[in-house]
Amino acid sequence: MVRIDGRGPEDLRPVRIERNYLKYPEGSVLIEVGETRVICTATVEDKVPLWLRGSGQGWITAEYAMLPRATQQRNPRDVTRGKPSGRTVEIQRLVGRALRAVVDLSALGDRTIWIDCDVLQADGGTRTAAVTGAFVALVDALARLFPDQEVLPVYDFLAATSVGLLDGQPLLDLTYAEDARVQVDLNLVMTGRGRIVEIQGTAEGAPFSREEFQAMLAVAEKGLNELLLLQAEVLGENAARVGKWTHEKTRPGNEE
Amino acid sequence: MVRIDGRGPEDLRPVRIERNYLKYPEGSVLIEVGETRVICTATVEDKVPLWLRGSGQGWITAEYAMLPRATQQRNPRDVTRGKPSGRTVEIQRLVGRALRAVVDLSALGDRTIWIDCDVLQADGGTRTAAVTGAFVALVDALARLFPDQEVLPVYDFLAATSVGLLDGQPLLDLTYAEDARVQVDLNLVMTGRGRIVEIQGTAEGAPFSREEFQAMLAVAEKGLNELLLLQAEVLGENAARVGKWTHEKTRPGNEE
Amino acid sequence: MVRIDGRGPEDLRPVRIERNYLKYPEGSVLIEVGETRVICTATVEDKVPLWLRGSGQGWITAEYAMLPRATQQRNPRDVTRGKPSGRTVEIQRLVGRALRAVVDLSALGDRTIWIDCDVLQADGGTRTAAVTGAFVALVDALARLFPDQEVLPVYDFLAATSVGLLDGQPLLDLTYAEDARVQVDLNLVMTGRGRIVEIQGTAEGAPFSREEFQAMLAVAEKGLNELLLLQAEVLGENAARVGKWTHEKTRPGNEE
Amino acid sequence: MVRIDGRGPEDLRPVRIERNYLKYPEGSVLIEVGETRVICTATVEDKVPLWLRGSGQGWITAEYAMLPRATQQRNPRDVTRGKPSGRTVEIQRLVGRALRAVVDLSALGDRTIWIDCDVLQADGGTRTAAVTGAFVALVDALARLFPDQEVLPVYDFLAATSVGLLDGQPLLDLTYAEDARVQVDLNLVMTGRGRIVEIQGTAEGAPFSREEFQAMLAVAEKGLNELLLLQAEVLGENAARVGKWTHEKTRPGNEE
Amino acid sequence: MVRIDGRGPEDLRPVRIERNYLKYPEGSVLIEVGETRVICTATVEDKVPLWLRGSGQGWITAEYAMLPRATQQRNPRDVTRGKPSGRTVEIQRLVGRALRAVVDLSALGDRTIWIDCDVLQADGGTRTAAVTGAFVALVDALARLFPDQEVLPVYDFLAATSVGLLDGQPLLDLTYAEDARVQVDLNLVMTGRGRIVEIQGTAEGAPFSREEFQAMLAVAEKGLNELLLLQAEVLGENAARVGKWTHEKTRPGNEE
Amino acid sequence: MVRIDGRGPEDLRPVRIERNYLKYPEGSVLIEVGETRVICTATVEDKVPLWLRGSGQGWITAEYAMLPRATQQRNPRDVTRGKPSGRTVEIQRLVGRALRAVVDLSALGDRTIWIDCDVLQADGGTRTAAVTGAFVALVDALARLFPDQEVLPVYDFLAATSVGLLDGQPLLDLTYAEDARVQVDLNLVMTGRGRIVEIQGTAEGAPFSREEFQAMLAVAEKGLNELLLLQAEVLGENAARVGKWTHEKTRPGNEE
Repeated sequence: MVRIDGRGPEDLRPVRIERNYLKYPEGSVLIEVGETRVICTATVEDKVPLWLRGSGQGWITAEYAMLPRATQQRNPRDVTRGKPSGRTVEIQRLVGRALRAVVDLSALGDRTIWIDCDVLQADGGTRTAAVTGAFVALVDALARLFPDQEVLPVYDFLAATSVGLLDGQPLLDLTYAEDARVQVDLNLVMTGRGRIVEIQGTAEGAPFSREEFQAMLAVAEKGLNELLLLQAEVLGENAARVGKWTHEKTRPGNEE
Repeated sequence: MVRIDGRGPEDLRPVRIERNYLKYPEGSVLIEVGETRVICTATVEDKVPLWLRGSGQGWITAEYAMLPRATQQRNPRDVTRGKPSGRTVEIQRLVGRALRAVVDLSALGDRTIWIDCDVLQADGGTRTAAVTGAFVALVDALARLFPDQEVLPVYDFLAATSVGLLDGQPLLDLTYAEDARVQVDLNLVMTGRGRIVEIQGTAEGAPFSREEFQAMLAVAEKGLNELLLLQAEVLGENAARVGKWTHEKTRPGNEE
Repeated sequence: MVRIDGRGPEDLRPVRIERNYLKYPEGSVLIEVGETRVICTATVEDKVPLWLRGSGQGWITAEYAMLPRATQQRNPRDVTRGKPSGRTVEIQRLVGRALRAVVDLSALGDRTIWIDCDVLQADGGTRTAAVTGAFVALVDALARLFPDQEVLPVYDFLAATSVGLLDGQPLLDLTYAEDARVQVDLNLVMTGRGRIVEIQGTAEGAPFSREEFQAMLAVAEKGLNELLLLQAEVLGENAARVGKWTHEKTRPGNEE
Repeated sequence: MVRIDGRGPEDLRPVRIERNYLKYPEGSVLIEVGETRVICTATVEDKVPLWLRGSGQGWITAEYAMLPRATQQRNPRDVTRGKPSGRTVEIQRLVGRALRAVVDLSALGDRTIWIDCDVLQADGGTRTAAVTGAFVALVDALARLFPDQEVLPVYDFLAATSVGLLDGQPLLDLTYAEDARVQVDLNLVMTGRGRIVEIQGTAEGAPFSREEFQAMLAVAEKGLNELLLLQAEVLGENAARVGKWTHEKTRPGNEE
Repeated sequence: MVRIDGRGPEDLRPVRIERNYLKYPEGSVLIEVGETRVICTATVEDKVPLWLRGSGQGWITAEYAMLPRATQQRNPRDVTRGKPSGRTVEIQRLVGRALRAVVDLSALGDRTIWIDCDVLQADGGTRTAAVTGAFVALVDALARLFPDQEVLPVYDFLAATSVGLLDGQPLLDLTYAEDARVQVDLNLVMTGRGRIVEIQGTAEGAPFSREEFQAMLAVAEKGLNELLLLQAEVLGENAARVGKWTHEKTRPGNEE
Repeated sequence: MVRIDGRGPEDLRPVRIERNYLKYPEGSVLIEVGETRVICTATVEDKVPLWLRGSGQGWITAEYAMLPRATQQRNPRDVTRGKPSGRTVEIQRLVGRALRAVVDLSALGDRTIWIDCDVLQADGGTRTAAVTGAFVALVDALARLFPDQEVLPVYDFLAATSVGLLDGQPLLDLTYAEDARVQVDLNLVMTGRGRIVEIQGTAEGAPFSREEFQAMLAVAEKGLNELLLLQAEVLGENAARVGKWTHEKTRPGNEE
């Protein structure tokens, strides 16, 4: 089976990650996955949310938005409705949660890292591109925050991708046009060591069998391995500072 | 391993579903899962959202809220903040999506079914209890809407439950106290024929391995089979009208 | 004159008050007045509103809401409009004001008691049921707050009811169907010693004469005496701790 | 007992009503009650609220606001909070309801009369001044709307005042300073024929006895009779067109 | 060229400024420019915005609103939309900025002066009337704040007016009817010494040439000189306390 | 006088305009003015605002936003406050008004052109860059809308720039660091034929003299001429379709 853009079912689109895309943020990347383009920035703020004050623990939070014409039809800005849409809320919670899972928040001290993911162009997979790009921006921000620390408080690499199911066939990294046709949409967020951080599978059309689910999972893992390699390559000298944090020894799942 | 309330790791809490709990809604149940208590109602409205007008297709949408003292600490009402919280948004989108996956919306005509899930008491698992209870309320509302139709436009039964992972051990149907201690939280929405409608697994603490994920999945399925049986029993005469809809023959995944 | 449900013009509907209806709140009741069902909870919070800080005086505030299908037609939630409706605002101000009138706020210290009245089913008289039920929840919360105090800082019992005027005839405790037909709606909040806390009479249709007003007042008092007796009975051992507070001797109207 | 400003307990403050205070509205007055100053305007709009469309009945609705420095301390504007305060909501509902009670809405056709009450200076009694002034603006607007109709669709004159209770003594027409000291606040809205449109008595401090209530009622009536006379005088030629409407013969309470 | 109201092209309408219009504010005026009527008040608050805390500098901020029937058609209140309109925002920013330009904020200490401009009647030129009137209210408030200071921290007088361009002819001080017909609208805020504080020229219809712009500027200056004289006259004894502040010697543009 | 970045006082920063920056919008550019980067898109929508329905006239409206980290400090998104800031409102009104001044709206038919200006990086002059870039995006969108029309309904080219005043010296095209130091900020929007569309001069620090104002004006014109040439060059084949529209002959100021 060949796809509209010539890819095989288990092929990612071309991915490009440009670091230091903007001059002010502590970390910033432009990530392009096919025609999808997302700016991810990481901002270090010297305070924590109210409910963390005094805990000595930091926080990571994410916001997500699309330019009105990132899409084929113009989308009104969230501010016009007065509040973020349900979809926006879901995505920004996902991004924040995923990044927190690989960072030792207690090592941040009384700081919040703000992750901003702004979609310039949306051709499917914006939320997974946001996770993948935001991880790189986050590492750069932490590298700048802890210039003298060889090992950053990041347990592992982190990337995300999506898989769809079309007539029983898993398709990796869906474009917008493909996304509209599949019956199932699976998003997987995975670490460099292959552990799962978040898995979300939704029957857009019809429920799916356990076998179909396992097949999609396997294809997602293949794509994620490529993305994780790319991140390591792009991060250059900072890549070596990731994945070696051992401070919190009792943390389950990091015993390796 | 024995749990605080004496259950084994793969035991559900006692579940009770009371139909026709309120006198005005077309369908209404009180579902109790252990100490968690949720009122689910289904309302039939004779119009559809703007973007469906003229399509001849109906819609199902869900709203979710908690009484301020459903929890140990009082939670401010959503209206006080002026908008629903991110958590509320996530849950109501999940409930709506799940129910739509087992109903033939084209059979509803120009109608919207409003599902309201209001939590009186929250001791863990409110979102899965909401799905399980809402399904029963929905069937009752459809039965009232189509009194002369032996077969309702409902492809299959639908229930949800959650599984956590504690020290590598999957635990079925977490209470609030347990939920705070687990490293992973997996929610599964499944149909009567064992197909997956929605799967969401989140690393609260540390990422989890693929084997741990599979073990949780198996435990969730066991619990769901019990819930699906209970639904069929509770629905009485209406149970036989569910799962036989064949109108939309080409719908993938319903070929059995 | 006999009413649809067989009552005489001066009869209350059957009233039931179930204490400790929920497990988390400091006080909670389910009050049923005919088919009207309201959950009233009382929450003790260890701080006061900004404008009371440092005054040494506590506060009581109330919130009110209806489940969307508490009524025959589904009502959108207040949060959907982004703010409480005018009716909601009016009712929650009434409930808070009424309860404050019988409690010695200076005895509460730097605490706020939050009263939440959530209507499960609305068949007329929800605001007066809310006052009557909330009083019981409040007493229970104070009893828990001051376990060793034989006399609670509550000056007197407090209940509320409504009377309508139909063709010149006062009708006690209106159902929803009756409420739609009457020309006048009178709400009365009264203490155990028969003093008035709040009186609100509104010409729904045509203005009313002073004689009609006095007749309605007399009927309301009769109903309130029954409700006050029921409260005392339901409160059991806590009833004896109410109405004996003498700390604030100079408080006018409590000299008896 | 003599009051700070030299009045006896049953004296109104000096009242002045200036008609046609603004040039654009169909009806507009500046009402001054002592130092309280309120602009009341009546606007005729050629449509009705959604829920009245097609009913052939018109509507009257009211809005109320205070200039930020109408009071001793500056009050933030309602728009700053994003919504009207509870007090604002209560007052505008009262004003609208009161005016509707003396107008034959079916005679308005598909029209809404907007009443705007804007307080320039607040020295107590703004809500009752608003009702009293708005009635005059409303009559002028109707007179302009129906220039050829000798009898306007207004059943009766309408005015409002307040009475407080201080040490058992009823005080008519409270200033702001007095209002802060009384134990009870009673607002009465009455028609030219002495019928009650709205009565609201609230125990600010301690509950009041039935006798105290009756004494306040008598004092309020005295004040209202003076206000109603003043309205008739001020309205000049338009006064004769009020109170003679007989179209809706079956309307209870208008048989005289 | 003679205008509808008989004025020549370079004539102001009659202007009247009444000081101490309200009893509570520290400064308050009613300014009437033709039929345009605006209440301007100045309130002294003993704190500064968050971002100025600890700077030792004060602040001046302005709010602007219109009564709903200040205009020919009723305008919904800003609070109804939940936020101020774009026009409101623009005007209140202009007023605040203009006043700050002539006051030595460091002399205010930790205080904010709130300027409230409320339009009772709008017949063109409300924003410039607001600036002109607010300046007088501000001086009075400062005079009251610094009773013993002969020289107030006000660098200069400040007034504003507008000029339009109709068929190449500049027209001073436009009424609402004129404003709707002109192609260009120029607002000028100027000090007593003839320096420019703010200039805003907008092509309502077609762009304008540089010569036309210069002609409008000249006419505006003429009008402003009259307004500045009137302010000095109206301010009476306080006028002599304005324009002599020399504390901040290095402030550019105040060297004279 | 040489500036930090080596420019002379009357030099623009390097300006780059990239057309067709995004794939979905009808017109889209990335404009870079020094380090300031703004994406401007133009969207054609086939309907007009409510108040224009049936008039046969189209509309142009603009929205403006900054990415949170477009600036040195992270700025909260407008949606977080629930409404656009005053600054945002001012800018988007300016952009819309300016573009409308050079387009024959009656030629658009029942269409709205949405202009979206999103600032990726803000180093001063974002609002004038937005106008300059948006004009190019607008022309491209109209060229696509009217492919067969040699002459587009655009009266003239349109660009904007800013000039500051520092120690009496006008400085063209301020960076953020310069903007913070100047005493006056002048924005000028001008057409290809040198006519003024909008002029806004604000005394940030001290009022300015008429001579200083004229000097700034001259410098602004110089910069605008360069920007207008660049636009013509960048627009390529579409440049020749601008500035020749003669349909509305009577429009003042377009007689040349």
